[in-house]
Amino acid sequence: MSFAAVDVIRTKRDGGALTDDQIDWVIDAYTNGRVAEEQMSALAMAIFLNGMTDAEIARWTSAMIDSGDRMDLSALTRPTVDKHSTGGVGDKITLPLAPLVAACGAAVPQLSGRGLGHTGGTLDKLEAIPGWRASLSTEEYLAQLRNVGAVVCAAGDRLAPADKKLYALRDVTSTVESIPLIASSIMSKKLAEGAGGLVLDVKVGSGAFMKELPTARRLAETMVRLGAAHDVPTVAVLSDMSTPLGRTAGHSLEVAESLEVLSGGGPADVVELTLVLAREMLGLAGLSDVDPADALKDGRAMDVWRRMISAQGGDPDAELPVAPEKHVVAAGDFGVVTRMDAYAVGVAAWRLGAGRARKEDPVSTSAGVIMHRKPGDRVSAGDPIFELHTENAELIDGALAALEGAVDIGATYEPEPLVHDRIT
Amino acid sequence: MSFAAVDVIRTKRDGGALTDDQIDWVIDAYTNGRVAEEQMSALAMAIFLNGMTDAEIARWTSAMIDSGDRMDLSALTRPTVDKHSTGGVGDKITLPLAPLVAACGAAVPQLSGRGLGHTGGTLDKLEAIPGWRASLSTEEYLAQLRNVGAVVCAAGDRLAPADKKLYALRDVTSTVESIPLIASSIMSKKLAEGAGGLVLDVKVGSGAFMKELPTARRLAETMVRLGAAHDVPTVAVLSDMSTPLGRTAGHSLEVAESLEVLSGGGPADVVELTLVLAREMLGLAGLSDVDPADALKDGRAMDVWRRMISAQGGDPDAELPVAPEKHVVAAGDFGVVTRMDAYAVGVAAWRLGAGRARKEDPVSTSAGVIMHRKPGDRVSAGDPIFELHTENAELIDGALAALEGAVDIGATYEPEPLVHDRIT
Repeated sequence: MSFAAVDVIRTKRDGGALTDDQIDWVIDAYTNGRVAEEQMSALAMAIFLNGMTDAEIARWTSAMIDSGDRMDLSALTRPTVDKHSTGGVGDKITLPLAPLVAACGAAVPQLSGRGLGHTGGTLDKLEAIPGWRASLSTEEYLAQLRNVGAVVCAAGDRLAPADKKLYALRDVTSTVESIPLIASSIMSKKLAEGAGGLVLDVKVGSGAFMKELPTARRLAETMVRLGAAHDVPTVAVLSDMSTPLGRTAGHSLEVAESLEVLSGGGPADVVELTLVLAREMLGLAGLSDVDPADALKDGRAMDVWRRMISAQGGDPDAELPVAPEKHVVAAGDFGVVTRMDAYAVGVAAWRLGAGRARKEDPVSTSAGVIMHRKPGDRVSAGDPIFELHTENAELIDGALAALEGAVDIGATYEPEPLVHDRIT
Repeated sequence: MSFAAVDVIRTKRDGGALTDDQIDWVIDAYTNGRVAEEQMSALAMAIFLNGMTDAEIARWTSAMIDSGDRMDLSALTRPTVDKHSTGGVGDKITLPLAPLVAACGAAVPQLSGRGLGHTGGTLDKLEAIPGWRASLSTEEYLAQLRNVGAVVCAAGDRLAPADKKLYALRDVTSTVESIPLIASSIMSKKLAEGAGGLVLDVKVGSGAFMKELPTARRLAETMVRLGAAHDVPTVAVLSDMSTPLGRTAGHSLEVAESLEVLSGGGPADVVELTLVLAREMLGLAGLSDVDPADALKDGRAMDVWRRMISAQGGDPDAELPVAPEKHVVAAGDFGVVTRMDAYAVGVAAWRLGAGRARKEDPVSTSAGVIMHRKPGDRVSAGDPIFELHTENAELIDGALAALEGAVDIGATYEPEPLVHDRIT
């Protein structure tokens, strides 16, 4: 079927629902350049302001999957399951999680992305490891899944190309923060990946794209329904992102912290969230009798990590890059840390060189922030709270400005739960 | 001042009002290619759905005027006044009106446009006259205004170039029917023209862009306020466009009908609207004691017409093109015509070759529809109602399909007023 782009835009503009045929046509025509960028951006704004029904979102997602190829993992003997995080500050969970779940018997086929804005990207973090490469051929990818059980690499051009084009467009047209558009973007990529089950870590709080619980919950519910509509069992965990995860934000710093977790140590919140998500993934893989905590403690997860890094050219024993310039921010008061703002820490790490303003910008692998104190920790005046790492000392002032007012010190601290809710 | 396009878009997307500086920046940056088409289309859709305040519309209009040059007509000794119609079917009023008003002592500086969709454009109509050319240099334009008192020609590249770009964009992104965008588009061009007064003929009914009186009234009020905000006295007339104007729709057919009016004859509705608008224009020009009806009857308007056409290379005595293919649609019943749908007639004329689907398409000057009967006329079965003219007989079936159900024949007819209201 063929339509005129103006008619499709008008339907959504006037508050109507797009038909399946209209959605299939507009996604295909946009991917192939017959619907212009300015037409898709008008449609995206109309969707942003007028919304989409569940049926429209499901079809829109299917059409984006069908703009490329859906990976076929049926030849694998292990059950496949993947995780996706909506993005946060210090969120290195994929690094220990993927080898951990593989060590427990499932296969984790993660096609991942890079950071944009104040949130870090998994590929950027792994690239801090000397020699590691993000791009694999389909054959290399499948072989690593079969032999190692875990792979984290860049998505190829055939994974939801419509989404790739639309994502770049939304970024420059202020049409990012729309639940139908976010949900279909994430789920088209994750469903095209071909995993048998999906666990979504939907972040909520200042450092997340969704600042409020009700919005995060709506996004999570929308994505869980989308998984079900595509016959992929999907569970969402709503986790806190008002405070950064762990004690580091920055690429090589987060790899080092992940290695602590894989060695059986590491910050309690990173360990807790890794285990919560691992149990969800193992449950979907039919492996709920396996306890992932054991595999962290006895080194099995670390073994898979080493094989996973080596398989992609990385040296698991190489020294990680360390930034030449450091600056300590000390506490001005004594008491207990009652708040540490995730967004402020994310912006500080970004300004120190860890982030990028445009997709094509390079990042500094060694730049970032170490958090010597976290909420709940006691401090005295003069104690270090933050340690800023950068390759360029001129960037420190900007990071300090971002951290103004990012920390509260008080008398008592009431811990907030790390996991707010679970949606199935 | 400089802004990021995404921030400007986000402000409007979230229902806020744009500041003067934001508006000035975005219009200038768009005109000069620093704001991309896809960003302006997202902003246009946000404006479409979230609206603009009067202050925003006034500033947006000023910024579009300032994207080019505002014509200076102060050297003319006559008062200047112009008319703009929002477009309809059979609306040839400019053709008798401009020379008529000039014959009464004012100067009419009309920079005009071409038709798009089912409505005809004044330049297309005048181009049916052999030799007539739409493009004039500024010097030719000013000389003709001085010597003849009336000029109807194409707008140059320096007349609100931002609007030219935005108009083309809106056309392909379904962001046309927005009162802030329509009002600012029309008024930026008309105010840049430099006339001392403006009369707006805002059409309402099936053949107009505004189908309902309340919307047409809001558009008229918005434009009248915009004129006042720019110190140009502006009056709007709300006139009926549920029925086509006159007895012809099509370029050479409408020129012929206009010549009847300039000869003191012609259809009553065309004469009535021409005189209503002429009196408004003369009022704004300080010439309300002159009766334009006299100048139609005694041939003075026709004299100015002949000089106006000759000055632009046209031969006022040349034969007008006549279409080789004709087809008569006869009445199937007897009674009185109670309704004739303007939109249907407009689409029929368009399909016969009078209209264009894209700006760059040529039009057939001889194609169109003659209405042998109009509402209020008696018919017997077999009497001709429509006469279709075209260069290509294959186009007749499409025109006939457009005319299905376009005419009602009944027992009694209650005439509707041609002018619904007047807004000052």
